[in-house]
Amino acid sequence: MDFNKELEERVKKANQAIEECLPKEKNIPGNLIESMRYSVLVGGKRVRPVLMGELFEIFGGTGKEIRFFQSAMEMIHTSSLCHDDLPALDNDMLRRGKKTTHAQFGEAMGILAGDALLNYAYELLFDGINEAQNKENAIRAARILSKKSGYLGMLGGQSVDVEREKTGIEGDQLEILEYINEKKTAALIEGAMMAGAALAGANDGQLEIIEKMGNRIGLAFQIQDDILDVTGTTESIGKPVFSDMKNNKETYINIVGIEEAAKKVIELTNEAVALADQLPRNTEFLKEMFSYLSLRKK
Amino acid sequence: MDFNKELEERVKKANQAIEECLPKEKNIPGNLIESMRYSVLVGGKRVRPVLMGELFEIFGGTGKEIRFFQSAMEMIHTSSLCHDDLPALDNDMLRRGKKTTHAQFGEAMGILAGDALLNYAYELLFDGINEAQNKENAIRAARILSKKSGYLGMLGGQSVDVEREKTGIEGDQLEILEYINEKKTAALIEGAMMAGAALAGANDGQLEIIEKMGNRIGLAFQIQDDILDVTGTTESIGKPVFSDMKNNKETYINIVGIEEAAKKVIELTNEAVALADQLPRNTEFLKEMFSYLSLRKK
Repeated sequence: MDFNKELEERVKKANQAIEECLPKEKNIPGNLIESMRYSVLVGGKRVRPVLMGELFEIFGGTGKEIRFFQSAMEMIHTSSLCHDDLPALDNDMLRRGKKTTHAQFGEAMGILAGDALLNYAYELLFDGINEAQNKENAIRAARILSKKSGYLGMLGGQSVDVEREKTGIEGDQLEILEYINEKKTAALIEGAMMAGAALAGANDGQLEIIEKMGNRIGLAFQIQDDILDVTGTTESIGKPVFSDMKNNKETYINIVGIEEAAKKVIELTNEAVALADQLPRNTEFLKEMFSYLSLRKK
Repeated sequence: MDFNKELEERVKKANQAIEECLPKEKNIPGNLIESMRYSVLVGGKRVRPVLMGELFEIFGGTGKEIRFFQSAMEMIHTSSLCHDDLPALDNDMLRRGKKTTHAQFGEAMGILAGDALLNYAYELLFDGINEAQNKENAIRAARILSKKSGYLGMLGGQSVDVEREKTGIEGDQLEILEYINEKKTAALIEGAMMAGAALAGANDGQLEIIEKMGNRIGLAFQIQDDILDVTGTTESIGKPVFSDMKNNKETYINIVGIEEAAKKVIELTNEAVALADQLPRNTEFLKEMFSYLSLRKK
């Protein structure tokens, strides 16, 4: 298997689905649709839709409804980036080498584009449920994704991260950081993979394995992100380096040191790979994908 | 029928559903759950859940799933208020006589509480679909509500309103204002009533009538809101008066004058009442509700 070629093809398929699903209406006053499209089309690795699609296939899924789910996944993720970048949160002007949504369209539109993308994700999920051959599976998948995105998932982690930065949160700082990484980053990776599998009919036991697997690779991905923030260049990662330090964010690196962090990335990745071996069918691409995510240089 | 007593009972039932559905977790770091609860429990007339519940009953609905839908409805509405009040949008510090979410918890939490409430609305809708006796009806109802909340509904109207205020939008100002009122306010009233009816199994023709009815009463409600902004007192309406003028917002009042606006409210209300007469069963409370909404003094 030529991993890079396989990945490129899957990213291309995900991008096609996303582009097809994006709002296209003309003759609507204002810039909302333009700012939604801009936020999504500015780029990205499409990691979550690719993982979702892969799990869907591993569990034998074939229906078109996956395209709605993959697009919804990316809308949720993009919505969170839109809001992360706002002046009241991380105040980032650059992402993926381009202006962030609020830098391009103003702060109010940065807020509203994020809102509209989050809501649109659910519009797409209902469209997907409507199209699905097996509606029970589709409802289950959408429900999982909604919970992984919410106040006990991604948004929960995001808010603890913000509060820690703004006012500080009392308690064991490593524990709090682990909570943030589990929720802010890993939850959505778990949700992507679980929803893909659930949509194809995976059972509870299988979903439990996938949740654990998503957790491990999500954490590895986040720690690698922190490592790149101190070892990469603006050019290679498409956003300012040392942004965590600038924002006064304590990361895994500050607490355990860069060597320990790098070791943790490998340990977590190995765990994810071992879990993948418990799944039915061919998980070769998935396992390569895990290495790609945790050992990436940008 | 004693309308005030009936209304009080229905509001009480809606509040019970909302309180039951609100997140209750303890031992979660940070203030997200507290800020979500604050935003919702600070009060409100619960107009949309009451209308939703009423239409559900008019069409013979009896299941418990309505409670998830009513709560989701109020979460969506509250989420939009949270974000409307932000410094980058209306910059309001007071709503319903109490501090707005960002005034109470800071700007970042104002953003994240709104996000979490919007997402949570969909978590609740999936819970409701899961519980529903008739899943097809529930999916249909949730789908309608999602579209009425989105970029072609409430959020679309909200964004045009903001842009008009910040940078101006070229074109016929009355037309643009009507677009805003149709989307920002009426869409969610339409969605509330349509979703309630759809959940109970209303057919396409009936939903069309309800959509039109929701549109008329939603517009009447908004124009009355504009009238109260110039004729009410801070004490009676629970927020600063002349806030539209302060925010440099052109309202229906500025364009057509207060007398014409008051006439329009009555005309729209009469249309809504006439449409209600086309529905099956007893719509006495619904029609009284329309008068209450359009002739309210606060």
